[in-house]
Amino acid sequence: MYSSPSTTARLLITCLDQPGIVYHVTEFLFQYGANITMLDQYTTDPIHGTFFMRLEFETVHLTLSSAQLSSCFATQVAKPFNLQWQINFASTHKKMAIFVSRHDHALMELLWRWSRKELAMDIPCIVSNHPDLAHFAKSFSVPFYHIENYPAIKTTAEQQMLALLTEQEVDGIILARYMQILSPEFIQYFEHNIINIHHSFLPAFVGADPYRQAHHKGVKLIGATAHYVTSELDMGPIIEQDVIRVSHRLGPKQLQVLGMDIERQVLARAVKWYLQDRIIVYENKTIVFDAH
Amino acid sequence: MYSSPSTTARLLITCLDQPGIVYHVTEFLFQYGANITMLDQYTTDPIHGTFFMRLEFETVHLTLSSAQLSSCFATQVAKPFNLQWQINFASTHKKMAIFVSRHDHALMELLWRWSRKELAMDIPCIVSNHPDLAHFAKSFSVPFYHIENYPAIKTTAEQQMLALLTEQEVDGIILARYMQILSPEFIQYFEHNIINIHHSFLPAFVGADPYRQAHHKGVKLIGATAHYVTSELDMGPIIEQDVIRVSHRLGPKQLQVLGMDIERQVLARAVKWYLQDRIIVYENKTIVFDAH
Amino acid sequence: MYSSPSTTARLLITCLDQPGIVYHVTEFLFQYGANITMLDQYTTDPIHGTFFMRLEFETVHLTLSSAQLSSCFATQVAKPFNLQWQINFASTHKKMAIFVSRHDHALMELLWRWSRKELAMDIPCIVSNHPDLAHFAKSFSVPFYHIENYPAIKTTAEQQMLALLTEQEVDGIILARYMQILSPEFIQYFEHNIINIHHSFLPAFVGADPYRQAHHKGVKLIGATAHYVTSELDMGPIIEQDVIRVSHRLGPKQLQVLGMDIERQVLARAVKWYLQDRIIVYENKTIVFDAH
Amino acid sequence: MYSSPSTTARLLITCLDQPGIVYHVTEFLFQYGANITMLDQYTTDPIHGTFFMRLEFETVHLTLSSAQLSSCFATQVAKPFNLQWQINFASTHKKMAIFVSRHDHALMELLWRWSRKELAMDIPCIVSNHPDLAHFAKSFSVPFYHIENYPAIKTTAEQQMLALLTEQEVDGIILARYMQILSPEFIQYFEHNIINIHHSFLPAFVGADPYRQAHHKGVKLIGATAHYVTSELDMGPIIEQDVIRVSHRLGPKQLQVLGMDIERQVLARAVKWYLQDRIIVYENKTIVFDAH
Repeated sequence: MYSSPSTTARLLITCLDQPGIVYHVTEFLFQYGANITMLDQYTTDPIHGTFFMRLEFETVHLTLSSAQLSSCFATQVAKPFNLQWQINFASTHKKMAIFVSRHDHALMELLWRWSRKELAMDIPCIVSNHPDLAHFAKSFSVPFYHIENYPAIKTTAEQQMLALLTEQEVDGIILARYMQILSPEFIQYFEHNIINIHHSFLPAFVGADPYRQAHHKGVKLIGATAHYVTSELDMGPIIEQDVIRVSHRLGPKQLQVLGMDIERQVLARAVKWYLQDRIIVYENKTIVFDAH
Repeated sequence: MYSSPSTTARLLITCLDQPGIVYHVTEFLFQYGANITMLDQYTTDPIHGTFFMRLEFETVHLTLSSAQLSSCFATQVAKPFNLQWQINFASTHKKMAIFVSRHDHALMELLWRWSRKELAMDIPCIVSNHPDLAHFAKSFSVPFYHIENYPAIKTTAEQQMLALLTEQEVDGIILARYMQILSPEFIQYFEHNIINIHHSFLPAFVGADPYRQAHHKGVKLIGATAHYVTSELDMGPIIEQDVIRVSHRLGPKQLQVLGMDIERQVLARAVKWYLQDRIIVYENKTIVFDAH
Repeated sequence: MYSSPSTTARLLITCLDQPGIVYHVTEFLFQYGANITMLDQYTTDPIHGTFFMRLEFETVHLTLSSAQLSSCFATQVAKPFNLQWQINFASTHKKMAIFVSRHDHALMELLWRWSRKELAMDIPCIVSNHPDLAHFAKSFSVPFYHIENYPAIKTTAEQQMLALLTEQEVDGIILARYMQILSPEFIQYFEHNIINIHHSFLPAFVGADPYRQAHHKGVKLIGATAHYVTSELDMGPIIEQDVIRVSHRLGPKQLQVLGMDIERQVLARAVKWYLQDRIIVYENKTIVFDAH
Repeated sequence: MYSSPSTTARLLITCLDQPGIVYHVTEFLFQYGANITMLDQYTTDPIHGTFFMRLEFETVHLTLSSAQLSSCFATQVAKPFNLQWQINFASTHKKMAIFVSRHDHALMELLWRWSRKELAMDIPCIVSNHPDLAHFAKSFSVPFYHIENYPAIKTTAEQQMLALLTEQEVDGIILARYMQILSPEFIQYFEHNIINIHHSFLPAFVGADPYRQAHHKGVKLIGATAHYVTSELDMGPIIEQDVIRVSHRLGPKQLQVLGMDIERQVLARAVKWYLQDRIIVYENKTIVFDAH
């Protein structure tokens, strides 16, 4: 049901552009029996630019173990070419925590897709600063943790959350309309691994109540933006955005109802691409390979 | 070819909401032989809200002249109900000046649609601060005026332009990528009758070089916004917006090329709706009736 | 939460176009204290065309009961002008049965929106030819009826379903991916009150397995269509359609997964408009008033 | 102004999937100083599927001439791996004939983009079965040939056209709303090099007057399709499609006016991708690499 079978692996590379990279990388994979099934590559500039590549390959005929492959790649290719890189195996699911507050729509969308095996992740926990959505988590058999969080107790709350996430070896966090701001210290533990859904077309309408802002401004399209969380509010690298047409007839409340449809779709796509290792962050922007 | 025949008239109304407005207005039209062919109405709030209505009616069987109809409406309906209103007859084309600088795409789109009778307007003049597009104007047989304009001579330039527009009894101005800022004094002469196309999804990327701003930010959609010009730069009431999907592969120059397609479409729609009397401005926003 | 408050009523009218209809209808409503909050009107042709109108009005200050209003309207307006018409009061929810088979996505979307009060309907029953989704219905506390249905037993099955629907005084049926064809006799009981979601952009790809057909054809967009069911398969009046961009990379299975997102949105919109009395059928097409 | 500089070349490959293809191809290019700037690859199935690849590379540091590179590639790579392939150099523009009848919108769009250097092609001739658009061609300084064509004289007309195209060494033909059907014999001379714009979302509304068909059916979106011409009418491989939302208010004539906007955009994109060697035909479908 997942879009790539569990015998697939993905290699992500960032480096200075230089002749022969594709050749050397593909030679390495060919030598050890990795059959490339998808390759996408991008260079900011052919002369002294930055080079990005994403490869998918079949692991069935590998002549090395997964660990050996990674270790050989490090020595034989990554080091000589000074690559930033990662290899991930589709058989190992990422462990994702979901943070929510009271709105259920983003959580519902994620859990429903996950239960249908559209999203290849494990969900060790749902964390919320409110108890409201506990039943929701329960109906999908996912552990729910109610950890109160407001400015006065943020430090304690974040320590509690961090302890939980560490214990469960969480790889990343999805903020499915979590209405508390996380501290730079907390964010730093999961750099470029926290995905937020903001309910506007960023950079328009940063901050609180963007639907009211959009209504006040009289825009003819409203949108949603999935982005990585950084220490600057709503300013992290954008992963995905979409919009829907609206008319003067709709008040802020109705914009919110329509907008939730876009939020759900945009967040689900961003999470899917994250899980499929399609995203590289570069200069506070994202390279998203071969999406859809 | 125009979407409404020349025997049509349009009535636009703004007033405080109160019971019976639709009834009294339609009674008036019925009495004098005006057959309503389209009616669209909107209220911000049924209790003490603001009421907006646009009516199209056939004038073939009118028992009064156009002038008499307007005058009777003023006395019999508009005054008792304290309406802001206008009646426009499709047979009288609006006179529109087009202002351009060096980019030809928006001008080309307008002239081509105008020559096919998609846009029901007269174009007494094209005004530019550069001579570059004179041949373009000429190939459509529209008078072209090169009036230099830069900050140091703005006052003089605007006086010259104003003299020209006054002489030609211009109703409105289309800024088809005119790269000079007009003074509040000039704008005031044509309040809510100057349409600008801004090459971003406003309110994101106000000001200069929005494609570069969009590229720097890494947005996944770029857009264009047609709006009425007010004294605050890029902040006037939005008439129409649209977007197109872009990827990390595209540099600022390529965003600009793609964006021009959206600019052309968005400006053409806004102008069409303006010419068809579909737009009412209210609280720095627009009501756009029955668009498309 | 619903877009129109429970003190609202809607009047739908179809008739031959003739001068004065709007005036006479609005005069009637004004006389009896109904304050019009929305009016949308459409004529196929101002001369001898067909006239359609949808009105929303506030019922708070009505000087008649609901029943009296309807009865007076019949005598004083509908009869003299030979109108087809209906008045519905928002306080009376429509009773909708949902039919499903094994796919859960359309059902999930409807139940979730219904539970959030986005869809103003009662759901007396979910009917399925398979037992699979019983738990789903249960988690939303909606009665679930497993009624087997395949060609050989269709007559019996439909009698059973009809008995159930009659007993529960069902107004309409939503086919949320119900994979059996209903007989013309059954359909006739609910003419223009059965909404189906077809998983293609009709009229392309009528019939079975449209995603496979779309993949085979190599289309660059896939779509979904909500339509009223008529006796001719997939040929009833179209209520709503939408599409999503796809690439050559996607196989039929992946088209199906992407397409489900469109199916959910399109069906939800069609049902919402049906419940808000926005749809009139005319010549196997639909007039959809003021959607969004 | 063109999206790829003139020092770029493109390599297109189709073959049976087999391990090591990417490696061998990129090794070849590395050896001879070709720096890969873009690589996109697709396999229908990793096991015994068909493999497609598009590569862009910089030719500045090539150690062979263009002709030598092609000839070496044929011997050293293409033959051993049994590849179908082509190498095209961006410095050599394709020669494209444009065929039109009376509608000017598609032609206008192409000529305008071409004059701005958005479309990297030479246009040796515009051919039309009507004289109407001669002035249009003249204003862009492109030779215009009026060659009458109707069923009774088709054979002669096509011979005349073929003579012209051969003399001018035309690579491909763009049917910018050419309203005559070309014979299979004629088409065969330019297999997969004739691009047509059809004014509907194919496969819906094949044949004549699709806007009337769309209006009759009551669809909520209308579209346009750019496709390669084959001997079966409107059934060739689809290159690009798009749609626009329409309402019940619009008659066939208005659908046509709106639809032209989509036709222009869709045809322009298809032509751009053709000129950039982004399209491979396979099983009556297209692989379109890295579009946008």
